[in-house]
Amino acid sequence: MANVSYFDVASTTPLHPVARQALIAALDEGWADPARLYRSGRQARMLLDAARRTVAEELGARPDEVSFTTGGTQAVQLGMLGALRGRRRTGRHLVHSAVEHSSVLHTAERHEADGGELTSVGVDRLGRVDAARFAAAVRPDTALAVLQSANHEVGTVQPVAEVAALLAAAGPDRVPLLVDAAQSAGRLPVPAGWSLLAASAHKWGGPAGVGVLAVRKGVRFNSPLPVDEREGGRVPGYPNVPAIVAAAASLRAVRAEARERDAHLRALVERIRARVPQLVPEVEVVGDPVHRLPHLVTFSCLYVDGEVLLSELDRAGFAVSSGSSCTSSTLTPSHVLAAMGVLTEGNVRLSLPLDVTSAEVDRFLAVLPDLVATVRAPLGLELAVAAPPAAARQAPLVIDALGKRCPLPVIELAKRIGEVAPGDPVVVLADDEAARLDIPAWCEMRGQAYEGEAPAADFGADRGSAYLVRRTS
Amino acid sequence: MANVSYFDVASTTPLHPVARQALIAALDEGWADPARLYRSGRQARMLLDAARRTVAEELGARPDEVSFTTGGTQAVQLGMLGALRGRRRTGRHLVHSAVEHSSVLHTAERHEADGGELTSVGVDRLGRVDAARFAAAVRPDTALAVLQSANHEVGTVQPVAEVAALLAAAGPDRVPLLVDAAQSAGRLPVPAGWSLLAASAHKWGGPAGVGVLAVRKGVRFNSPLPVDEREGGRVPGYPNVPAIVAAAASLRAVRAEARERDAHLRALVERIRARVPQLVPEVEVVGDPVHRLPHLVTFSCLYVDGEVLLSELDRAGFAVSSGSSCTSSTLTPSHVLAAMGVLTEGNVRLSLPLDVTSAEVDRFLAVLPDLVATVRAPLGLELAVAAPPAAARQAPLVIDALGKRCPLPVIELAKRIGEVAPGDPVVVLADDEAARLDIPAWCEMRGQAYEGEAPAADFGADRGSAYLVRRTS
Repeated sequence: MANVSYFDVASTTPLHPVARQALIAALDEGWADPARLYRSGRQARMLLDAARRTVAEELGARPDEVSFTTGGTQAVQLGMLGALRGRRRTGRHLVHSAVEHSSVLHTAERHEADGGELTSVGVDRLGRVDAARFAAAVRPDTALAVLQSANHEVGTVQPVAEVAALLAAAGPDRVPLLVDAAQSAGRLPVPAGWSLLAASAHKWGGPAGVGVLAVRKGVRFNSPLPVDEREGGRVPGYPNVPAIVAAAASLRAVRAEARERDAHLRALVERIRARVPQLVPEVEVVGDPVHRLPHLVTFSCLYVDGEVLLSELDRAGFAVSSGSSCTSSTLTPSHVLAAMGVLTEGNVRLSLPLDVTSAEVDRFLAVLPDLVATVRAPLGLELAVAAPPAAARQAPLVIDALGKRCPLPVIELAKRIGEVAPGDPVVVLADDEAARLDIPAWCEMRGQAYEGEAPAADFGADRGSAYLVRRTS
Repeated sequence: MANVSYFDVASTTPLHPVARQALIAALDEGWADPARLYRSGRQARMLLDAARRTVAEELGARPDEVSFTTGGTQAVQLGMLGALRGRRRTGRHLVHSAVEHSSVLHTAERHEADGGELTSVGVDRLGRVDAARFAAAVRPDTALAVLQSANHEVGTVQPVAEVAALLAAAGPDRVPLLVDAAQSAGRLPVPAGWSLLAASAHKWGGPAGVGVLAVRKGVRFNSPLPVDEREGGRVPGYPNVPAIVAAAASLRAVRAEARERDAHLRALVERIRARVPQLVPEVEVVGDPVHRLPHLVTFSCLYVDGEVLLSELDRAGFAVSSGSSCTSSTLTPSHVLAAMGVLTEGNVRLSLPLDVTSAEVDRFLAVLPDLVATVRAPLGLELAVAAPPAAARQAPLVIDALGKRCPLPVIELAKRIGEVAPGDPVVVLADDEAARLDIPAWCEMRGQAYEGEAPAADFGADRGSAYLVRRTS
């Protein structure tokens, strides 16, 4: 495959040319231990200090507020656990949105296992938290609130500044707000009002192995790890100066380019958002169409196994990702799509590089319809959808999808709902947990009525659940 | 400074040419997310798997026992805390040697602060633990024992295999042994019998930002951090594939070179160990002369401020390090030298690179005597040492060194002990904590009798301690 269009910068970004150049130079100039007093050590220290000033300036922080971590996950973990420890006397309650990155959710789970309490604030169908609702989740014993700057799966930008303003209204002992800026750093201005900020260099074109944790002066912080004298006592261990230098250099370069390319990227994403539903039947573009990352777009294809479609796209020269259950190693549905109440199956996330061309996007739009059709072909779905309505009936049509994995229960429903007349009931028996999310989501998309869940035993099954649907159109 | 001899590889090592080449190649070939299923992701996964096999083979582990961390400190912290959590039901007692790296001691302190118990096993004057004494510190509630492969300040190799054999004698529920192999990995074969092994790539010529944590199959491990699906659930966060590839490539290259260069390095260190005491008066070479790292040698110069000597050596083109209090940022005496009972002041650690030449070592030996003399000159010590003995006296000579920082109390003692006759007492009043270690160490070196410590009030002082010395020669 000579020409691959890499549309997955939200996972990781190839090293920016500026980062590559800076990295190679710093391997020669900044390899020594910056804690040493001899010449090469002093030189490494100077480079480290300069990188810290650059990153601080780009992120709107003071240099002494910025610590370099070994990655975005460490920044999130240290930031959350350090802030929680720092405010332990206030309480152990943590507020976060339901659509945070898994590193935030895993840390929250650990906090809960250690005796903390959590409130997960839901989002609307576009994936956005309501600022007032988020702020209202804060209690007298809340130690920390965590909110992403923008969602990593659907691109929706969160109302961070509004939330921060509401929290700040509580005065000097306000609940600190940790902002996970991993998806937006280098692409959009940092939202105002953060108390702690986490970011990851390889998401903006810097090298892997570098994250940023900024802690505003005055925010109480007590490291969860054994500390040493490195990084102001916040991040233990030998710092990777060459990679840090490259991360800082590329952040500055990318910020400038991102401003130049913002309109171009937004236009390409707009084209994808508009054209995909015109080109591919039964598709839903998800995420906020306006308040979004400039370069990221996600859509879900009904009756499509996401993993199979990604594999077809790979063969056609497109590297893309998915929040779909079928491509993750854990086989659980995307918690982001579930929280939004949209279909968790068959989804495709495109995150475009800064140097993407219109021609690449056009080629994607040209090949996508056939690839989706190819994936759907074995399901024989066209025939089923086109089937004439059967005679009216009173007893529900029972579709037995027990033992069938997602997306088969929804596909069965789609194929057979035409067998009943409008107004008649259908019951789907299924034991794949994803059906609980997908069947209501499918009903909403297709304008059918979802009427709830009943014990499977009511329909003679010994396991799973019964999902009650009524054909309305 | 065109030609600098970098004699501080125990702090960090310039990138090995093989590592540099592998890093730059892997920035192109292994930049993608190894968890992704598209072509570039699969390629990164293949490189990561190959690197794991290489490191496993070099360290005598199985690939599935090896996890890559973000550095040696993280390997130690995760290894210790993960093993302690894994055996929490057995107990919370931790055994370690008194001369472990600060990352081990900081983690032990954190464990103690969280309710654990510690036993620190002392070392002999060469810095070596006694295997039987170490193993005897294990109790029924001991969860973990930690022992370095070789000491980072004085190069003494520890009896890891003997300790491991003694622990293994307890049978299948034996106490696991974590071996901190940071200073020896790539230089010496890995000692037999480890349960967990920690190492750091930048110490062997790999890039910064890569460590290794190996956990033997069957050893219980429960991560102290929130985990994800990366690195077998042991190390969370996005892995730095290009750096890991470079680390593995350089480990293999360095192991081969280290075997070739072993005799050469040992001979150069032997030359330094023999010549320095002949060239410089009042110097003590510390650490085990036989059971030692091939490339590391440490000596202490009496009446020398370590920081000033390091600065003079830097100007003369030698980058060296020190465990001396005066060069660390914390101004506490080296815990290693203190545990050995040797002078904690004025010491110099040389750790030679693989490509060091005899000419460089000879140049070091040529410049050292004058530099030490230059540093000592302002103290006017020669005059004092040469002073004739005063008449015999019964009341002790009281030397008031209150308010004077190390090494001034010892210097005062050395200057003035000649004022009393052999057999007469001298009292040093001092309030710098380092005097408690340095005065007995000085007495042992100089063949004077140290007779213990008395309340400073006995000699009319309102603070500090009184150190009782008797001139014997």
